[in-house]
Amino acid sequence: MGKLILVRHGKSLWNVKNVFTGWTDIDLAPEGIEEARKAGELIKSNLIEIDLCFSSYLKRAIRTAWIILETAGMMHVDTRYSWKLNERHYGDWQGKNKDEVLKEVGEAFFLSVRRGYDTPPPCLSNTDRRNPEYDSNYKALDTTVLPLGESLKDTSKRVVNYFFEAIAPELAKGKTVLIAAHGNSLRALIEYLEHISSDEIAKVTVATGVPHMYTFDNKLNITEHYPLR
Amino acid sequence: MGKLILVRHGKSLWNVKNVFTGWTDIDLAPEGIEEARKAGELIKSNLIEIDLCFSSYLKRAIRTAWIILETAGMMHVDTRYSWKLNERHYGDWQGKNKDEVLKEVGEAFFLSVRRGYDTPPPCLSNTDRRNPEYDSNYKALDTTVLPLGESLKDTSKRVVNYFFEAIAPELAKGKTVLIAAHGNSLRALIEYLEHISSDEIAKVTVATGVPHMYTFDNKLNITEHYPLR
Repeated sequence: MGKLILVRHGKSLWNVKNVFTGWTDIDLAPEGIEEARKAGELIKSNLIEIDLCFSSYLKRAIRTAWIILETAGMMHVDTRYSWKLNERHYGDWQGKNKDEVLKEVGEAFFLSVRRGYDTPPPCLSNTDRRNPEYDSNYKALDTTVLPLGESLKDTSKRVVNYFFEAIAPELAKGKTVLIAAHGNSLRALIEYLEHISSDEIAKVTVATGVPHMYTFDNKLNITEHYPLR
Repeated sequence: MGKLILVRHGKSLWNVKNVFTGWTDIDLAPEGIEEARKAGELIKSNLIEIDLCFSSYLKRAIRTAWIILETAGMMHVDTRYSWKLNERHYGDWQGKNKDEVLKEVGEAFFLSVRRGYDTPPPCLSNTDRRNPEYDSNYKALDTTVLPLGESLKDTSKRVVNYFFEAIAPELAKGKTVLIAAHGNSLRALIEYLEHISSDEIAKVTVATGVPHMYTFDNKLNITEHYPLR
């Protein structure tokens, strides 16, 4: 069985703005670029050979993957992208200031969306210009399957689905796989891999820019997992 | 049948040094980066949607691919790499000044290697530190199949082999495929696609940084080919 390394992208240009990002395609901030470089150095100093890389459709994760591969001297590693590894879709809250949304919707609903499992944010309307259907990134896809707002449970479904569709078969071939993705898409994967309950998963935070290594037995049960140092 | 776009990487840091590069993993010069950006702008302004990208194991081609995809707003295009798209392996001449090699070996042999079809340069010895076996880029491969020096014919064989193995099946699925590669590996592919004789192919030069579009009938015969403008 292969090895899996998860990396959450570092600081983006919107982190400083305190707004919900979700599927908004915001690039890394200079600090995020530096975090990716350090992640690449950890891959290199731990003598890890990546065989295959996966990332989302969002450039803050893609650039993280590219910088890691370049820093580790592995620019030639085949790389596949899927919207199913995207950050949780934050619906109508995308682009809005978090404090203002909190004031507008009240603490109970705000926390239920942010820290609950089943509650989606208010969804985008079909005609909203933020609908992925109008985003050139997604035009090669059947856009009717793309979300307009997701609960963590919704995110979890598509991430775990993609894990079995595309990633687990590569682990079964013995490959060492890197995934560069987002706080909530990685949290969803960790929930599945580590058998964390949906009540507990909201408390799990994934550190940015720290490659986290998973090894497995031949039934895809985790045998070890640890952050690279 | 899909479409094929070939791009030769632009100026590398060794172009100015007038040395044989071959498999030496030299990065793009600033002018080469600019050439790649312009190529990406041409892909974008021609409204081309790339479905899949291929490149060699050498960073001057990989960076060309990355810059094109980023400039065209398509960072999420799946990308596969193969040593079979590498530049011709220039054996013992790699890293040597072209004028000095000419003086050393004489014009007849020099031209026969550079412009002939069957003549390889003097090959590297197995123990030469430039043997790809000692290069970390290739350590995941069966290094016994990697060349130590190639005629254009040798390059042609592995490029065309890879075209049928990996690229033609994607064209058959109707995909639009970008290949970012090198003067001689692209020349080899063009020789095959355009049915150019081995006597004539040495005269064909591939412009750097200009995406060249090929369309095909359903038997993979070219129906049209033209540089993007």
